[in-house]
Amino acid sequence: MTSDFSATRALFHLPEGVIYLDGNSLGPLPRAAASRIAACVTQEWGDMLIGGWNKAGWMDQPARLGDRIARLIGATPGSVVLGDTLSIKVWQALAAALELRPGRRVILSDTGNFPSDLYMADGLVRTLGAGHELRTVAPEAVGPAISDDLAVLMLTEVDYRTGRKHDMASLITRAHAAGALVVWDLAHSAGAIPVDLAGAGADFAVGCTYKYLNSGPGGPAFIYVAPHLADRVRPALSGWLGHEQPFAFDAAYRPGRGIERMRVGTPPVLQMAALEASLDIWESIDMADLRARSIELTETFIQSVEAACPTLVLASPRDPHHRGSQVSFRHPQGYAIMQALIARGVIGDFRAPDILRFGFAPLYTAPEDVTAAAAILAEIMATDAWDRPQFKTRARVT
Amino acid sequence: MTSDFSATRALFHLPEGVIYLDGNSLGPLPRAAASRIAACVTQEWGDMLIGGWNKAGWMDQPARLGDRIARLIGATPGSVVLGDTLSIKVWQALAAALELRPGRRVILSDTGNFPSDLYMADGLVRTLGAGHELRTVAPEAVGPAISDDLAVLMLTEVDYRTGRKHDMASLITRAHAAGALVVWDLAHSAGAIPVDLAGAGADFAVGCTYKYLNSGPGGPAFIYVAPHLADRVRPALSGWLGHEQPFAFDAAYRPGRGIERMRVGTPPVLQMAALEASLDIWESIDMADLRARSIELTETFIQSVEAACPTLVLASPRDPHHRGSQVSFRHPQGYAIMQALIARGVIGDFRAPDILRFGFAPLYTAPEDVTAAAAILAEIMATDAWDRPQFKTRARVT
Repeated sequence: MTSDFSATRALFHLPEGVIYLDGNSLGPLPRAAASRIAACVTQEWGDMLIGGWNKAGWMDQPARLGDRIARLIGATPGSVVLGDTLSIKVWQALAAALELRPGRRVILSDTGNFPSDLYMADGLVRTLGAGHELRTVAPEAVGPAISDDLAVLMLTEVDYRTGRKHDMASLITRAHAAGALVVWDLAHSAGAIPVDLAGAGADFAVGCTYKYLNSGPGGPAFIYVAPHLADRVRPALSGWLGHEQPFAFDAAYRPGRGIERMRVGTPPVLQMAALEASLDIWESIDMADLRARSIELTETFIQSVEAACPTLVLASPRDPHHRGSQVSFRHPQGYAIMQALIARGVIGDFRAPDILRFGFAPLYTAPEDVTAAAAILAEIMATDAWDRPQFKTRARVT
Repeated sequence: MTSDFSATRALFHLPEGVIYLDGNSLGPLPRAAASRIAACVTQEWGDMLIGGWNKAGWMDQPARLGDRIARLIGATPGSVVLGDTLSIKVWQALAAALELRPGRRVILSDTGNFPSDLYMADGLVRTLGAGHELRTVAPEAVGPAISDDLAVLMLTEVDYRTGRKHDMASLITRAHAAGALVVWDLAHSAGAIPVDLAGAGADFAVGCTYKYLNSGPGGPAFIYVAPHLADRVRPALSGWLGHEQPFAFDAAYRPGRGIERMRVGTPPVLQMAALEASLDIWESIDMADLRARSIELTETFIQSVEAACPTLVLASPRDPHHRGSQVSFRHPQGYAIMQALIARGVIGDFRAPDILRFGFAPLYTAPEDVTAAAAILAEIMATDAWDRPQFKTRARVT
């Protein structure tokens, strides 16, 4: 398989005059998604009506698309299913993992984790009570903090602010040695870097599809459960579509086979159609090629920015093997600088208190985009172009 | 306000030759939804990219559309928000209600409730442990079963199989007198019958939008919390979009104001666009007019079918004030009869073991559809046209 990134770039709609380095927040529109969604709306919903659940395959879609995502994250077919939001999937994985470790009550995470993961874990331990605890340590202190009272280690592989990447395989080994299970959040990994869930011996993983996987705003999340664990999970969110026979309308819940039991309610069919169009593009991509291209792009950006902008401080690991597919810089005026960049057509984003964050997606980010973006940033810094009132007024930040 | 149902009918895409009496499962496509979704895809996601969250109003949509649904269910603005699936919203409401009744551990429901509601409640009480219990009684026994140990009464107002309608106001009064809170599932009420949540003193309500509200397959669910309770709820599913300041990325969760705290993760923007187009149609509808028309349609259907089909036994309440906007009949060969009807273009659905279910949606179901459907059913019954092998083979039932 040889990935042709100039060919994939043409498959995305990228507005004229925009260099889009924010695909780690929301990926751009795959051109084919527009017609795929339109067909889903008019030919499926419109013409098939209720029949679409079977005739258009809506009911099987969460598992079918799960299999296509599985390849991108090193999972076997039948171990990934789509649905809900990432926050719900985090909660679901944590609840399942805790129940598989009776007698243990501690979830360990790191302070750099995405806040919603921590919030959901906090809500879960509060709901469970009885001594359940969410413990957090600094990202670099996670390994030493793995102790024998741990039920679950919950980590986001790639830090949303800095792009710092945890060493998945070694942390899993360490957690397993302590008798704990591990839940990985792949929000900034899936479609960004090669992931080898099966090879690393991962227990649970969750992720979203609207970042590097380009499924559009509010696209469904996914969940992975290791095949040897899936049939042992007793779903806490025991919804009808995770039932062994949803349409038998039994009074009692019986979990479905394997990963199917992690489904909850009715899948968002229109969002699934967008994801399907996006996954067609991924079919031609080799993840090793993607990683090589990603490192080329991020290295170029770091070198160009550091050479021209001495006041911007690299916030991402310098070693590309320790970061995902994003690069972040710190600056006290980070907010204004990002607004000035956006005004010039370079779209990245700002994360409080001082992080300028840039995502690099080989599917549509070309080397010339990277040098052009770095040049515009250099010009803004050299001329203090960010130092204007309109760039300093904080509107709602998303 | 005078509702013009011939005008609204023209706003839906109804395939040629089809009489659609299954909008209580999946509503048909509002014609304007196709262009609204296309605009969301190309002009918002495509051109605004990440900027869509603010510029296109995606972030506020769950509350904005919640306000529009509020009018249809007798709720005040600011008390309804969209998101997740109905199963998740049931769980969320139950967890919140239980926490508002410390010391009480019983959820009461009825055996006719939609299975997923019972499954989710079962998963919740199992997760909570410590003596929590889901108790179920026959639908007609709910009133007498309300006892002083009850924390929450969880009911679906309109039965998904028979259309039987609970008396919301009197059951709330009775539950409140016993010190319990009530969670209403409005899946078969919202857009089907007038609902007066505020007037009845409802505590929590949840519902879906893809049935009578026509938001398309997998459209988001909604949740209502009585304004005097909302700020007292401590969300168990404490996701970032329910945080007071999601984009501050605080380490600690602080619930948002009022109903906002019932949000969890990123809203499904494409599904929301479909809902928005559908809600435009509802703007011109008076719920009393809707109810009058609905009763006219269901009465006509019952009279026509009973006059011509002596072997079909009415499974719905005969008094229209005791049923929603659907009519069900029982027959041992119900499955085959429904297949024969579908083959003739009359789409209803079958629910095990013997229920033929027909939904009547005044927005697009006309009196002449009802008489035509009844005539086709009469012909099928008179000629035993259902008694053919192809109608008896059970394919996947949805």
